[in-house]
Amino acid sequence: MIDTESMATGFHAELPPWVWPFLDDYEAPLTSSAERMALVHALADRNWVAGNGGPFAAVVADTFTGEIVSVGVNVVLSSGLSSAHAEVTAISLAQAAVGSWDLAAVRPGLELVVNWRPCAMCFGAFLWSGVQKLVVAGDGPELEELTGFDEGPVVADWAEQLEQRGITVEQDVLREGAIATYTAYGQGRALVYNARRG
Amino acid sequence: MIDTESMATGFHAELPPWVWPFLDDYEAPLTSSAERMALVHALADRNWVAGNGGPFAAVVADTFTGEIVSVGVNVVLSSGLSSAHAEVTAISLAQAAVGSWDLAAVRPGLELVVNWRPCAMCFGAFLWSGVQKLVVAGDGPELEELTGFDEGPVVADWAEQLEQRGITVEQDVLREGAIATYTAYGQGRALVYNARRG
Repeated sequence: MIDTESMATGFHAELPPWVWPFLDDYEAPLTSSAERMALVHALADRNWVAGNGGPFAAVVADTFTGEIVSVGVNVVLSSGLSSAHAEVTAISLAQAAVGSWDLAAVRPGLELVVNWRPCAMCFGAFLWSGVQKLVVAGDGPELEELTGFDEGPVVADWAEQLEQRGITVEQDVLREGAIATYTAYGQGRALVYNARRG
Repeated sequence: MIDTESMATGFHAELPPWVWPFLDDYEAPLTSSAERMALVHALADRNWVAGNGGPFAAVVADTFTGEIVSVGVNVVLSSGLSSAHAEVTAISLAQAAVGSWDLAAVRPGLELVVNWRPCAMCFGAFLWSGVQKLVVAGDGPELEELTGFDEGPVVADWAEQLEQRGITVEQDVLREGAIATYTAYGQGRALVYNARRG
């Protein structure tokens, strides 16, 4: 018989506790996608410094009212799960909050706001979520160049693939803010690395 | 201030309880990738009938000893999470069991055995997991044609992209078993659908 003694039966990911007082400091509602992206940038900046994971954040919001349905940050380090990127976390928390894996059916009109074009995994995770709009700060090689992360291969026509499935895409929302986050992360990591070697 | 009252703080997915007695019936170790794929096919066949999610299963195994480190099935329906595909579940449970998001660092020599080429999301999730070999029953349009699922856009050179990252790929392991699973699922769904309409 297969030894199941040491196998895990479930997995769990949790937002870091600093997120809640952080959100208390924001005026609501955040009525534009740019305001929601500013929150995403602030969460991303805080997240890597706090040691939870990479410099990435995402929110699921109601496109029309601006209500924030869920917040996600990259918790790969703190959860021990390589799939716990900001987008997967935000989508999963939105689904946990509304009680369904299909957000389009239960809570139509939601958007995912994220500080770069999603990686290979998160692009797919977004597709299956029922979120109907994607708002990104940018797309292109800057993320990988500044942070050293591999984003994986994504099809060249990714935005058209989303549009074909009825998903709206809004690009280049507060792009410079994302570049600032990745630049700070790259420099911060270099400092830590040098300190360890010094 | 942003209203955090109705937001979720964490998310959780769990294997269905039938998995454990199911594994008790298997002789261990499963020394070949074909034996491990036979287990995957059996889990996939059981999973959709049990109502946990789609006809997909995956195991993370030690390539050399055949030890099963984790088992995953698609639990999208039972967990309420669109990301809880078989591969993400198996990878996450392996990481929960060993206590690290980077399986290559803590437990090198692992393979993911799955009953078709992973979807767009799971292809990326596999990339970030630290699993060093991918074993698939098949690749091609049959899955989508037989089940009706959208697998999302995956780059045409997906296997080369894995090899470039040091990951070995083994294809067409018990391919006919996967086709049988998808055929049964397609026919089973059609029956349920007709019954509801009848």
